[in-house]
Amino acid sequence: METGEVRFIGSVVEAKDDLSVIEIYPRFCPGLDKLDMYREMYVLFWFHLRDDDKHRSVLEVVPRRHGETELRGVFASHSPSRPNPIGLTRVEIVSVNGCRVTVKGLDAFEGSPIVDLKAMSTRVPEPS
Amino acid sequence: METGEVRFIGSVVEAKDDLSVIEIYPRFCPGLDKLDMYREMYVLFWFHLRDDDKHRSVLEVVPRRHGETELRGVFASHSPSRPNPIGLTRVEIVSVNGCRVTVKGLDAFEGSPIVDLKAMSTRVPEPS
Repeated sequence: METGEVRFIGSVVEAKDDLSVIEIYPRFCPGLDKLDMYREMYVLFWFHLRDDDKHRSVLEVVPRRHGETELRGVFASHSPSRPNPIGLTRVEIVSVNGCRVTVKGLDAFEGSPIVDLKAMSTRVPEPS
Repeated sequence: METGEVRFIGSVVEAKDDLSVIEIYPRFCPGLDKLDMYREMYVLFWFHLRDDDKHRSVLEVVPRRHGETELRGVFASHSPSRPNPIGLTRVEIVSVNGCRVTVKGLDAFEGSPIVDLKAMSTRVPEPS
């Protein structure tokens, strides 16, 4: 099987209500420079509780959250059980302080490893 | 370093103008079931030409595409040189035929391994 290596860049250190705090490991922290110019970003995280052969071999699911009853392919779903346990959420950037980024809307558990952050092109307007 | 293993689920077999064809490996192909009910999805792919220590140690970049001149952190950019060589593009689903998915708007080179597909919630309307 062809594989690639993901290097975790940080983790979710707090997840309360709708606010989460991501802490980036010191060696990757320079990568946060100017992130505070943006309003939104994508967070790629690792479903660490599903990183086993059982959950990674799931190819069809019934998306219960939406009251569905029919099986569908995992690629037509956001199921955390999937061949690669990577979650993707579009979040609002609340603040960036040192190596900590506070975000709104991240649906990852505390302790989830972070794979990547990708700012979206909508910037915070320049002060006029 | 904490790491995770990504298992490639397919690859980009054609990339012409704005249209690309993704071929999913037979073992993962059942995961495409009902994907054709959706208009759009996210494609996560591997920047295989940047998967080396040199490109993966880049933490600051000058985003040339946008005529910028200042350095910024990679997480505030979509640079393919980044700690994890994962690309993310939102694409339009043109068709799903067997293990092949034709999409519009994917900015991945031919030969790029595919990491994941995630349908977006906008569905094709039911025929009335």
